Amino acid sequence: MKNVIVGQSGGPTAVINGSLYGVVRETLAHPEEIGHVYGMIHGIEGFLQDSIMDLGEELSGEELELMKVTPAAYLGSCRYKLPEDLLSEVYPRVFEKLEALEVGYFLYIGGNDSMDTVSKLSRYAARTRSDIRFIGVPKTIDNDLVGTDHTPGYGSAAKYVAGTVREIVLDSSVYFQKSVTIVELMGRHAGWVTAASVLARKYEGDNPVLVYLPEADFDLEEFARDIESAFEKNACIIVCVSEGIHDASGRFICEYGDEAQTDNFGHKMLTGCGKILENFVRRRFGVKVRSVELNVSQRCSGVLISAADLEEASMAGREGVKAALAGETGVMVAFRRAESAPYHIEYITVDVNAVCNQEKSFPAEWITGAGNDISREFVEYARPLIAGEVTRPVEDGVAVYLYRGESRENTKSPEAIGTVGKTKTENR
Amino acid sequence: MKNVIVGQSGGPTAVINGSLYGVVRETLAHPEEIGHVYGMIHGIEGFLQDSIMDLGEELSGEELELMKVTPAAYLGSCRYKLPEDLLSEVYPRVFEKLEALEVGYFLYIGGNDSMDTVSKLSRYAARTRSDIRFIGVPKTIDNDLVGTDHTPGYGSAAKYVAGTVREIVLDSSVYFQKSVTIVELMGRHAGWVTAASVLARKYEGDNPVLVYLPEADFDLEEFARDIESAFEKNACIIVCVSEGIHDASGRFICEYGDEAQTDNFGHKMLTGCGKILENFVRRRFGVKVRSVELNVSQRCSGVLISAADLEEASMAGREGVKAALAGETGVMVAFRRAESAPYHIEYITVDVNAVCNQEKSFPAEWITGAGNDISREFVEYARPLIAGEVTRPVEDGVAVYLYRGESRENTKSPEAIGTVGKTKTENR
Repeated sequence: MKNVIVGQSGGPTAVINGSLYGVVRETLAHPEEIGHVYGMIHGIEGFLQDSIMDLGEELSGEELELMKVTPAAYLGSCRYKLPEDLLSEVYPRVFEKLEALEVGYFLYIGGNDSMDTVSKLSRYAARTRSDIRFIGVPKTIDNDLVGTDHTPGYGSAAKYVAGTVREIVLDSSVYFQKSVTIVELMGRHAGWVTAASVLARKYEGDNPVLVYLPEADFDLEEFARDIESAFEKNACIIVCVSEGIHDASGRFICEYGDEAQTDNFGHKMLTGCGKILENFVRRRFGVKVRSVELNVSQRCSGVLISAADLEEASMAGREGVKAALAGETGVMVAFRRAESAPYHIEYITVDVNAVCNQEKSFPAEWITGAGNDISREFVEYARPLIAGEVTRPVEDGVAVYLYRGESRENTKSPEAIGTVGKTKTENR
Repeated sequence: MKNVIVGQSGGPTAVINGSLYGVVRETLAHPEEIGHVYGMIHGIEGFLQDSIMDLGEELSGEELELMKVTPAAYLGSCRYKLPEDLLSEVYPRVFEKLEALEVGYFLYIGGNDSMDTVSKLSRYAARTRSDIRFIGVPKTIDNDLVGTDHTPGYGSAAKYVAGTVREIVLDSSVYFQKSVTIVELMGRHAGWVTAASVLARKYEGDNPVLVYLPEADFDLEEFARDIESAFEKNACIIVCVSEGIHDASGRFICEYGDEAQTDNFGHKMLTGCGKILENFVRRRFGVKVRSVELNVSQRCSGVLISAADLEEASMAGREGVKAALAGETGVMVAFRRAESAPYHIEYITVDVNAVCNQEKSFPAEWITGAGNDISREFVEYARPLIAGEVTRPVEDGVAVYLYRGESRENTKSPEAIGTVGKTKTENR
């Protein structure tokens, strides 16, 4: 009887632990077919340092449920890229360790780069006739994976952005004066997260009235004209921009401050495009301006997790285990939208090689107006993804999340989980 | 039979509409004693432009309940300061308008500056033997009003900070590398909001391990030593700082970038202290650093409203109406902590002249360590204030809030609400 090993990789999301939960639960549902469900601490990078835990043994059922609603990555993450050269000494090392643990099924939860890891390991397995199966479970708030209708993590990020921007609209509108509020959202290359800001609108013509994605070129003078037009209808203007907006030459707007942006020690400062635009609007229009960067809360907030997203994330983990048991390898679990109204998703698998190192941009035809608005089609696409509320246990007024450090005392001795060496738990 | 008029003033909070709700509900509970409950649109500034609404008539019971859980300021706000000179022509204008509306009770929800308005109007009333009663209802996330145990709005801001910092701790800890995350929190002069970040700790020694308030001088070299010591125990360090931290000379840390901080058009950029410290740590320690500014969500987020705070805010509004009916004037509703365990608050009134233009600092004896930590006493003080969850109605995945614009069609004709001229509703 073989074991499962699972890892998390890339940036945190609100529901990446939902997928981990799905993997563990599905594994535990097959006691006749699968033995242990090991977790790599800090993904493949930690695994190479023998940093693992036994998720099925070390976590109680209650802890598993708590982990499901805990944002970020319970197992820790990494940004480790395996060598392109399959002849590298890393590969036999990985497989030796996997074999020592009697792993039959390797599941990796992550985005583009993580799918690259799944691709390489599955190709190495094919080449060496290993029967270990490698399955990718999608995860990214960026929603930029090809081959799937959307990615787990996106719905919760979109819900966070929609809800928070609606509150910023309220906040920005309390004074009786012209003002511009610029909200900078995540998305270096893909505008999916920023587009979700239009879900904040409560009625036709509501803020945010201007939305800019990296999929369209950004021009400062056009932006000034957009603001001018917007002022004809609104006293308070809320503008949402992706961090990655750039001009027609490809230069990022956040780089416009580069030369002069130094602190008083003469060192360069890193500034977001929101700050650059804030400064531009203040100078040009002489009105009250503020920029707000939603920052990491977009990916790690647990207060606005989408119930639909969490359910799908968990199902993606479960489907990954099922696919592995069914003999699949070198695939990623994906979503096919079978129906739009009512919304219904089918779980499929796609060739991981067709997914990794690709990026799915926001569709050009969904960018409307003069490149400053988002179409109705997007709203219909995105609404089901942000549906439903998730409640978390609260203690002393603050959400109780599951910290890996807490299971430290329960961590089994290295010997107990094979020959892999010491289990490393580090300070958080 | 006299009428009530109520206004909101100063910065938004998550529960300022809770106080407005309390004023309206308490007024409606006295149909034999009070006629209408008017709302000033944009506080005293809007009132001077005859911008008012009839809250009791224009809002349904359902809308009132929705308003209660809507953050920011439903009536709109202002930062208008009445002239120091009570002989100014503004005062007779205000009183003429109040008399035209047959106002007997004037309630103003706000912070220091708003209490100054209450003080001046009540003093003018005394001088002119007007029998209009002026009552202040406290509001500020800063918790810096004297004469009260705490202020409505603080509990929700503290809860937001505690919950969000806990998530940032999780997010910052996923990678297996040394890192520093600097969270910049609101508080130009008072550290109450920043202090609440220690409520994010789940266990002894948990992050944030370093907390700096404006009530203690900040020194960059000491800060560097603090980071160094923290690295001895932690790989990931979360630092929470008030926006208003300053050095021993009184210079704000956010001003350290002043001279050199310009954009590429040669114009000065405004930067927070978080960014300055981020840059400093990156240079000094060469580790991964990020700064996060929680920004306006601290005061306007509706997702982490404290139920205790909302209840107290509403009660403060109700008590204001009761005090007015009882003949009080020139007072502010305040909270006295009758018991700590179990937590129990008594509602009292205090002389508004003793409150306005004063600031209550964070107690020096609650700042511990080398000026970089917060004492257990504060935790005991603050915990009851962040207790309890509030749910809001959600539609299409986003919280439904009450927008004033929506009642526009219901706005009564100017004639119907007296001789005050046109009701102004503006674009939001």
